[in-house]
Amino acid sequence: MDGTIQPTGSRAERRDRSTAETRASILAAARDCLLTDGYASLSTRRVADSAGVPLSQIHYHFGSKHQLVLAVLAEENERLLGRQRTMFDSPEPLWARWERACDFLDADVSSGYVRILQEMIAAGWGDAAVAAPVRALIGEWYRLLAEVARREVANGLDLGGFTPDEVAALMSTPFLGAEELILLGVTEATLPMRSALRKVGVILRLISERPPIAETT
Amino acid sequence: MDGTIQPTGSRAERRDRSTAETRASILAAARDCLLTDGYASLSTRRVADSAGVPLSQIHYHFGSKHQLVLAVLAEENERLLGRQRTMFDSPEPLWARWERACDFLDADVSSGYVRILQEMIAAGWGDAAVAAPVRALIGEWYRLLAEVARREVANGLDLGGFTPDEVAALMSTPFLGAEELILLGVTEATLPMRSALRKVGVILRLISERPPIAETT
Repeated sequence: MDGTIQPTGSRAERRDRSTAETRASILAAARDCLLTDGYASLSTRRVADSAGVPLSQIHYHFGSKHQLVLAVLAEENERLLGRQRTMFDSPEPLWARWERACDFLDADVSSGYVRILQEMIAAGWGDAAVAAPVRALIGEWYRLLAEVARREVANGLDLGGFTPDEVAALMSTPFLGAEELILLGVTEATLPMRSALRKVGVILRLISERPPIAETT
Repeated sequence: MDGTIQPTGSRAERRDRSTAETRASILAAARDCLLTDGYASLSTRRVADSAGVPLSQIHYHFGSKHQLVLAVLAEENERLLGRQRTMFDSPEPLWARWERACDFLDADVSSGYVRILQEMIAAGWGDAAVAAPVRALIGEWYRLLAEVARREVANGLDLGGFTPDEVAALMSTPFLGAEELILLGVTEATLPMRSALRKVGVILRLISERPPIAETT
């Protein structure tokens, strides 16, 4: 470093950049370790070795192991929410976009996101300091879903007596439940969760293509 | 014991009875400790003290802490399945019985059953020896639900393209997902899970009271 290559920017800018790089390399290493070793045996020592930083840097940047995993989850969550927003913004009918959401389920299990999310939900049951940020992360999902439902209502969809927030609850809770069971090793042959979720698209179609119940009874 | 009161039965019968009593008192103590202290801080030492037995008896009867909690869960699960079977055997229409199932949600959260079930599901994600018995316990629920759906079909209900097993998946996964979020502290004001689940009764009514979709389009 000594004079041969001139670093750009002020000393403060270089320090900020270095801090951001260290943080990013720790996060990338933590993500890899989570996917390889699983959550239970995640070792911050191993994450530090893999990122090529001293262990003290993990505690400096993230505090605890839970905070580190929450930071990995927050990064993945933001990425997947972006994907989901783009998908829901498409002009396809709601039931077709629901099918696209079903397509994502196995991708998100394979990527490790689902495992990390579910582990952090479980960690939150016994730890209020974990529960609050996890509630905030999950909240972005059902706010997005409620927003999708509200837009459908604005476009004339009859939600069949359900409020947009109730639709968000019905679109998110079966996915969370199915994820739990998939992680537990419940197979589609035992309980056809994926095909059932896909057929919820049929209900969405039924609601969108039929007159309200009062008019037919 | 020495002669003043004559114990009934053979020596082997008395031994079996004593074993069953020890087991039952450990289970009752474990249940109390789980509800008071929560899962994370469950101490087998405390369970032994509370049951008035030496710690070695817990290991003799149950092996590990996980096995002990699984035994508590199995006992609760059997009791609640019995309640659910009785409820689903009633002659009310399916949507009305669904409402009864919704009534049970908060009772089962309050009783501690939901917390123990969800903790054991989470423990199963990283431990195949826990996952297998938990899958078996949960399996009894969706087999019951699929049986309910099959009986409805036999009575002429059109499941709207869903198989009985898919109906079981759609009846069980949103409850599991809602339970996770309730344990995490998500309130009904944030995400109306309970009212959304209740309105699934509306969909069940819609399916049962309307002709198949092909006839109206």
